[in-house]
Amino acid sequence: MKLPIDFHFDFSSPYSYIASEWIEALAARHGRTVRWHAILLGATFQAADLRSPVSYPIKREYSLRDFKRSARFEGVPFVQPDRFPVNSLLAARVFWWLADTQGAEAAVAWARAGLRGYFTRGLMIDEPAGLRELAAACALDPQAVEAACADPAVKARLKAENDQAIAAGVFGAPFFFVDGEPFWGNDRKVQIERWLAQGPF
Amino acid sequence: MKLPIDFHFDFSSPYSYIASEWIEALAARHGRTVRWHAILLGATFQAADLRSPVSYPIKREYSLRDFKRSARFEGVPFVQPDRFPVNSLLAARVFWWLADTQGAEAAVAWARAGLRGYFTRGLMIDEPAGLRELAAACALDPQAVEAACADPAVKARLKAENDQAIAAGVFGAPFFFVDGEPFWGNDRKVQIERWLAQGPF
Repeated sequence: MKLPIDFHFDFSSPYSYIASEWIEALAARHGRTVRWHAILLGATFQAADLRSPVSYPIKREYSLRDFKRSARFEGVPFVQPDRFPVNSLLAARVFWWLADTQGAEAAVAWARAGLRGYFTRGLMIDEPAGLRELAAACALDPQAVEAACADPAVKARLKAENDQAIAAGVFGAPFFFVDGEPFWGNDRKVQIERWLAQGPF
Repeated sequence: MKLPIDFHFDFSSPYSYIASEWIEALAARHGRTVRWHAILLGATFQAADLRSPVSYPIKREYSLRDFKRSARFEGVPFVQPDRFPVNSLLAARVFWWLADTQGAEAAVAWARAGLRGYFTRGLMIDEPAGLRELAAACALDPQAVEAACADPAVKARLKAENDQAIAAGVFGAPFFFVDGEPFWGNDRKVQIERWLAQGPF
């Protein structure tokens, strides 16, 4: 029995979005499934004493170019949102609420809708209107979504997931574990691919 | 006439070393040549307000694992040096002294010897004994190498190269320019490859 691939992503991370578009197909080609984990990149940065690459002006300029190029490389539609990054807290809470109440498939559908919404048409996933639009797209009750965002149990669930990711060594996104082996970054795709095809190298 | 690929590297950068082992073959397959540029990663970090990834404990742990794995992925011999990183100032000065007095080929031979010496057998490229050994391996007069390290004109040459790299947007290593397009990191190999094969994407 092959282990699932653990895929940690942040709703506001361009490289997470790009990876979210290839990870399922790559996994399937090698008889694997994917466990999606919404995390807050900010929390992992804080734990590791890091800052976002786009907070450094020189690196930011390159990064904005590389986001677009990396998306084109993978054939993934991408439009740099004007407001970037955004707070992904509420979208991540809804993800875990769905995972717990409706199952992984519903949570992944929410993740895809949120990532695509933000990175292809600038849907503001940190604003009530944006969340309502996402809820509608996913056939969810917008009031239930809003309630989940404010639910202390859901808040605690996300916090526990972040803590668990940090304890496992996650300090960025996307961050994968394949058979326990850590891979950081959309650009580790080729290494993950070889691992899946041939095993440890 | 196809433009040469500009390849910026630091003698103490594992990913620079790995890239140095594939860049010439990749370029040649696409009818390109490579212009090697020894730079000081520390200077580019300072200019961009960045720090080395291995200065962050959590990122360091992953990075040490990833250096080895990335080398294996490319089939490049790699042994993590015990003392790491080291000051690459003197090795970089000798590189530019050779480039100016003996030509690019001699400078590249020095670069290969230094990178391989440090990353396969822990040769201390920041110490007089290590530089003497490198000089011998490259059939250079060790006293001339030592003199070059202390020559104000050579110091100024390296500084000018660093300044030029920083002005061009270099903030890490390896850092490539292909037809003016910037690519940062050993892991941008696949994108460089596609660019060389198909042009801009």
